[in-house]
Amino acid sequence: MKNLAEMGRSAKKAAENLALASSGEKDRGLAAIAAALRAHTEELLAANGRDTASAAEGGMSRSLLDRLTLDEKRIEDIAAAVEEIIALPDPVGQVDQGSQRPNGLSITRVRVPLGVVGIIYEARPNVTVDAAALCVKSGNACILRGGREAIETNRALAALMDKALEEAGFPAGAVQLVTDTSRESAQEMMRANGLIDVLIPRGGAGLIKAVVENSTVPVIQTGVGNCHVYIDSPCDLAMGVRIIENAKCSRPSVCNAAETLLVHREVAEKFLPAAKEALDRHGVQLRGCPHTRRILGESVRPATEEDYAAEFGDYILAVRVVDSLPEAIAHIRKYSTGHSEAIVTSDYGHSQAFTRQVDAAAVYVNASTRFTDGGQFGLGAEIGISTQKLHARGPMGLAELTTTKYIVLGSGQIR
Amino acid sequence: MKNLAEMGRSAKKAAENLALASSGEKDRGLAAIAAALRAHTEELLAANGRDTASAAEGGMSRSLLDRLTLDEKRIEDIAAAVEEIIALPDPVGQVDQGSQRPNGLSITRVRVPLGVVGIIYEARPNVTVDAAALCVKSGNACILRGGREAIETNRALAALMDKALEEAGFPAGAVQLVTDTSRESAQEMMRANGLIDVLIPRGGAGLIKAVVENSTVPVIQTGVGNCHVYIDSPCDLAMGVRIIENAKCSRPSVCNAAETLLVHREVAEKFLPAAKEALDRHGVQLRGCPHTRRILGESVRPATEEDYAAEFGDYILAVRVVDSLPEAIAHIRKYSTGHSEAIVTSDYGHSQAFTRQVDAAAVYVNASTRFTDGGQFGLGAEIGISTQKLHARGPMGLAELTTTKYIVLGSGQIR
Repeated sequence: MKNLAEMGRSAKKAAENLALASSGEKDRGLAAIAAALRAHTEELLAANGRDTASAAEGGMSRSLLDRLTLDEKRIEDIAAAVEEIIALPDPVGQVDQGSQRPNGLSITRVRVPLGVVGIIYEARPNVTVDAAALCVKSGNACILRGGREAIETNRALAALMDKALEEAGFPAGAVQLVTDTSRESAQEMMRANGLIDVLIPRGGAGLIKAVVENSTVPVIQTGVGNCHVYIDSPCDLAMGVRIIENAKCSRPSVCNAAETLLVHREVAEKFLPAAKEALDRHGVQLRGCPHTRRILGESVRPATEEDYAAEFGDYILAVRVVDSLPEAIAHIRKYSTGHSEAIVTSDYGHSQAFTRQVDAAAVYVNASTRFTDGGQFGLGAEIGISTQKLHARGPMGLAELTTTKYIVLGSGQIR
Repeated sequence: MKNLAEMGRSAKKAAENLALASSGEKDRGLAAIAAALRAHTEELLAANGRDTASAAEGGMSRSLLDRLTLDEKRIEDIAAAVEEIIALPDPVGQVDQGSQRPNGLSITRVRVPLGVVGIIYEARPNVTVDAAALCVKSGNACILRGGREAIETNRALAALMDKALEEAGFPAGAVQLVTDTSRESAQEMMRANGLIDVLIPRGGAGLIKAVVENSTVPVIQTGVGNCHVYIDSPCDLAMGVRIIENAKCSRPSVCNAAETLLVHREVAEKFLPAAKEALDRHGVQLRGCPHTRRILGESVRPATEEDYAAEFGDYILAVRVVDSLPEAIAHIRKYSTGHSEAIVTSDYGHSQAFTRQVDAAAVYVNASTRFTDGGQFGLGAEIGISTQKLHARGPMGLAELTTTKYIVLGSGQIR
């Protein structure tokens, strides 16, 4: 296997080329990738079969095994996702501001690619193609490091993409896979200043924390979501039930799912039993504050500090009754990871206070937190959801994979 | 002295308040700062006198001592700079994109403050006020850590600003100074995740490198500039002489000054003697490649690898003759710090190739690199010049001290 320094140099060369490629050229490269995915479905399934066989042998849980498994339909979906990326507008070259200065200098700020993007992720092989396609479209080379469990599948996917891009006229190295899945190879990527321009970790809280703490390469932190739904007084209680049911149960494993329900004291007696009925149908386990347990009964398990801080990613929901809107906001300030936070209210002033005072990537009034997603926000495919404040916040589309450059055209101006 | 954790908590409280303050309220706070600076000029001069006395005793160089010294005019200039910041538009609350989604959700992305900004800087006391004023205007609290040499002046300035803000109705803690100027206090700021939202180092290459390598708090890297001026063939040679003279000599210590001159072989015989004549008038020492020395004579000292990589910050200029535009671009790719790069050319295609292929915060055609500056670019005062690609690139004004938040208004939408 090539070492990271070699990969980095080859990625840098490819990045110089990709940065100058026209949208048409990049789209042809992506079309070649989609075609290759379809043409090599059998090979990909064979490689994936090797991964799933060793994962099953190693005792991987059913839900993880399901994430890892490809079939013909999933490969077709991955190819179709590449075609959706082709259809998105190219951010490179867009002018985001410009002016003529009093001394006659013409200054424009244009979007340019970041360069070489490193992505460290876990089991799902579709990320390998999604991430590579978003990088190609935005003119970046990428160095991908997926999980050990998916190594055979990822090898096959990366080889196929690199070959498709070469056949479409791009230099080798535009899409590369780190095949060493040891902890050391991830560490090496985190210290690859000068070779990797930005590192994006995608996966569980542990992975993201490790990257943030150890990387000297600039990082975009994604995805940990301890999201809250707050049921205010007054509000449409039936709407509140629909929203918490959707936010908790429509896909509990994702980062925009709700983890804690906050309820205003004045509506708790009416709201909590109705919410419990809806959540019971999905088998949601509640963990409540003392007030919640007085209303719903002792069968509800008590909530601990850890429960309020947890991203369960499962059919578990912490519940707390609060005395006021400020108390709800204070709870959110204390436990929120800054992902998505919602209020259900019919009071205009409360909606204003909540959206202004809650500090998160996305703040909702009367809607489910589940909408925090590039597709739902109209940005197209996303490379992740940033929960940091620098560079990008919330769903990151193609524009977030670019930086800017000032171009200053003069006629001999000096200062 | 308070410890950093206490300062961070108090800054966070102040930041919550500042984030909700109206532009009018923030401007009144800034006006109070400007007034206090003028009212307490004598106290400030006394504090500064203690700093300059110990610096002179300690053998500080004249140019550094000059940077450290305040007088009545400099204090007036600092107060006037605060008033210029008052006059700038408030970025907070600006909506930078928005749409109505097919399901009726209204999504807007609004600018919000970053929260608590940490700034680590060196000797100049005007940075203390500039940085604080930019943070207040953009709704951020700040924790400032200046150099040991300016500690008495900074103490006086910070106390005066905090008091002025309190009198204008802001809670204490909006502007705080770390009075422990040991290496440990800087290290502690770099690890203050959860207390400091972003860290901005301002100073020499050593400081910036230390912060980038050791900080787990997100960093905006500023300022190191190894800038090039490339004299192309064909070009207006007299314009080339004016531009390199200005880029090198108008203020050699700043980051947008030129450090290396590249000259196309075809024009070198004519250009180099003319450039040398102009540069000689400023006492610039040239360090040349063998070709340069054949033209200008053996009295020109040979340039080493280190010279091409250096940010001299002084009346020294490395010179290299290149065979072609691609060779000039390759040299810049190898040695550039990505700050400001200029071509002097009369060829349209060459200007296009240079601006597209050179990867830097600001790329110039036929103008001096010295224009890379918030004021010159029309952004108003700047907190620094970013040479990184994430979040901000080039001069950073008020907008770069903000992040965004998606506000999603619904009527019961679920997914």
